[in-house]
Amino acid sequence: MPQTRINLDESDLPRRWYNVVPDLPEPPPPPLRPGTREPVGPDDLTPLFPPDLIAQEVSSERYVDIPEAVQDAYRLWRPTPLVRAHRLEKALGTPARIYFKYEGVSPVGSHKPNTAVPQAYYNATQGVRRLTTETGAGQWGSALAFACAQFDLECEVWMVRASYDQKPYRRTMMELFGAKVHASPSPETSTGAKALADDPSHPGSLGLAISEAVESAAPSDTRYALGSVLNHVLLHQTVIGEEAQAQLASLGEYPDLIIACTGGGSNFAGLTFPFLRDKLTTRANPRLLAVEPAACPSLTQGRYAYDFGDTAGFTPLLKMHTLGHEFIPDPIHAGGLRYHGMSPLLSHIHDLGLIEAAAKPQSETFEAGLLFARTEGIVPAPEPAHALAAVIAEARAATGPVVILTSVCGHGLLDLAAYGAHLTGSLTEPDPAPRIAAALSRLP
Amino acid sequence: MPQTRINLDESDLPRRWYNVVPDLPEPPPPPLRPGTREPVGPDDLTPLFPPDLIAQEVSSERYVDIPEAVQDAYRLWRPTPLVRAHRLEKALGTPARIYFKYEGVSPVGSHKPNTAVPQAYYNATQGVRRLTTETGAGQWGSALAFACAQFDLECEVWMVRASYDQKPYRRTMMELFGAKVHASPSPETSTGAKALADDPSHPGSLGLAISEAVESAAPSDTRYALGSVLNHVLLHQTVIGEEAQAQLASLGEYPDLIIACTGGGSNFAGLTFPFLRDKLTTRANPRLLAVEPAACPSLTQGRYAYDFGDTAGFTPLLKMHTLGHEFIPDPIHAGGLRYHGMSPLLSHIHDLGLIEAAAKPQSETFEAGLLFARTEGIVPAPEPAHALAAVIAEARAATGPVVILTSVCGHGLLDLAAYGAHLTGSLTEPDPAPRIAAALSRLP
Repeated sequence: MPQTRINLDESDLPRRWYNVVPDLPEPPPPPLRPGTREPVGPDDLTPLFPPDLIAQEVSSERYVDIPEAVQDAYRLWRPTPLVRAHRLEKALGTPARIYFKYEGVSPVGSHKPNTAVPQAYYNATQGVRRLTTETGAGQWGSALAFACAQFDLECEVWMVRASYDQKPYRRTMMELFGAKVHASPSPETSTGAKALADDPSHPGSLGLAISEAVESAAPSDTRYALGSVLNHVLLHQTVIGEEAQAQLASLGEYPDLIIACTGGGSNFAGLTFPFLRDKLTTRANPRLLAVEPAACPSLTQGRYAYDFGDTAGFTPLLKMHTLGHEFIPDPIHAGGLRYHGMSPLLSHIHDLGLIEAAAKPQSETFEAGLLFARTEGIVPAPEPAHALAAVIAEARAATGPVVILTSVCGHGLLDLAAYGAHLTGSLTEPDPAPRIAAALSRLP
Repeated sequence: MPQTRINLDESDLPRRWYNVVPDLPEPPPPPLRPGTREPVGPDDLTPLFPPDLIAQEVSSERYVDIPEAVQDAYRLWRPTPLVRAHRLEKALGTPARIYFKYEGVSPVGSHKPNTAVPQAYYNATQGVRRLTTETGAGQWGSALAFACAQFDLECEVWMVRASYDQKPYRRTMMELFGAKVHASPSPETSTGAKALADDPSHPGSLGLAISEAVESAAPSDTRYALGSVLNHVLLHQTVIGEEAQAQLASLGEYPDLIIACTGGGSNFAGLTFPFLRDKLTTRANPRLLAVEPAACPSLTQGRYAYDFGDTAGFTPLLKMHTLGHEFIPDPIHAGGLRYHGMSPLLSHIHDLGLIEAAAKPQSETFEAGLLFARTEGIVPAPEPAHALAAVIAEARAATGPVVILTSVCGHGLLDLAAYGAHLTGSLTEPDPAPRIAAALSRLP
């Protein structure tokens, strides 16, 4: 029996993050100031982020050294395992060889701490005392709460109210790591107060929670942290792909096809950018496939245009695939994929024709998650179940020994209610078409 | 910085389980038939277990080979990591070196699949089609459901009603792996029907659920599986300690003190028996400390006497530390430690003076769990939080570089409601003394 799990030694932990920007044939379009539509400069970002993160956001260096203290915290769970999915292959009767990188072993059960830790570190070393952020399903908020606990920072999280009410476990995890959690919209911000005045039972949205967190980062000892979308976030996540490359290389394998789910884009970028480096330097030519939910298809149906990152319009204008910053997707269970836009860097890469994209309906993703759990013994989060649905479809269609690599970016242990609904047949499949058509028609 | 996590290669997976019985200075007292008080023979166990497991139950061989198919399933998560708890040590300011074996990486998040997989395997290869079992908090039921899915067995679980109602996630996990789950007491068995007739809102108990599962194993294609207590279960768990020994040896370390929690005893036995082997063969003399809940202190306060393993009295009489087979402990959150008895083998070893025992109140265990989560990034289940409370006390008292080894036998992600109660101060600390005194006075 060939090897199942490939572990790296702690000494093989990546020492550098990879920045794909200088390898691209043309740079991504810059963020713009909403008023003047002039490119945003580092000074515009200073109220939100510390200098080192701003430097990474606009860096043209191919590699950024990972600070010792960050490596040290990474060692609590990294390197993560790469696993050959023998039992899934057998269940599918496929000639394909399927590998998955498993990020669910992290402190909060997802890939999010890969960027939460360095964000907390740079803020702490540059004099910040408190970080604010938003969270949808709670993965990002938990990750930042954990990271802040490592560097003695206060952490304040605005959690989309629908999740706050439905997912008390995630809220408890944030509080357990010492964070303060608000339901969003909250009366603590003017954005939240206005939303509540309009609708006292407002269920919240990710865009609105971002607005509240950004507004709350005003004090001079406070900054804001974002869990996806931005260049420096994608940069930090490249440890996933760097490790996966080393792990596959130790087996003499190279992927023909790499599949990952995309919400804001950080998981997909983290897994694929080191392989995109090969593609850009013509060392190899793997297919790269981004999978998003049919209910929130920014890459496959959104417009590639300048738009706000948040509902209230506090952020710079970002050129990205977007469904419009006021778009509120159907309440699917993959909360981490319910964002109206796609990372500007990933949008640009898609526009350059370097990656493919597909959208999957919810029911197919839970079927995939169920098969994966029964064969591989890991309950995947609803987000990577989207990628698994595509992996399963590709493996079923395979006629030869194609090598497929994917990322199970989180476990689904705090999403078991959604699996329960799927098992009992009470999971409703939204028809997203009317909502999406309406959103697209509202775009300028 | 010294190494944090010590992984073993897949090729270092133990090939044999270790049976401590032949190394003991005297054999443990045999189970007895309730009527005649004659020792139970293999034939008495045939209705419940397949021949290979009965042979292991009474084996006098020091080692039992692990079948290839079991090793193959183990490879989904084993070898598990051994972790140096640097951040916990630092928070405690202790000169002790603390290592923990982490079993939470398994498919269901605990050590239970180590025995569920071989139990399902031996039943499947010996013609059984369906396994029945009980579960308290749901860890064991999930493990058996997962294992049955690997070997195409049906799985039917009687889950203590209080847990069934309070822990829908655990029930969903069992169903996700294809098991059928009943709330116990259930109308499906005569034991359950009688309990319901006496009290229609009966909350259930582990002893009662065992009775129901045993009663339901009557058909000829059906057998029963137990998740702790018995010799063959403890045997299977020794993979934990065998791996830990190899991992510590790779660092040139040997533990002075080994601490693990005990409910039925399988986690404690799994970690410590390979070190007890050293003690019995005078190669080393580590202290071995079993930690149980103050609310269910079978080792520290129970009588060492023959008693039934279940409430209805279907099992043979087992010589063990017991609080009486009708004892129902206070509803503490460490559901896996709420059993009236202690493994007969471990009781015997305790009686021989080879191990120590201590009991911890619930509040101290949640404080320990919280500190561990904030420093090490792993939310421990309430069960191993008992061991961590003792680890922390020993480390605080240490005056030199004592080496402490413990087992975090499961994560607490499905126990976050309990942590939430602890954080908000709504966790009640039962005073178990009156209940225990009453139970002890009822013993013959």
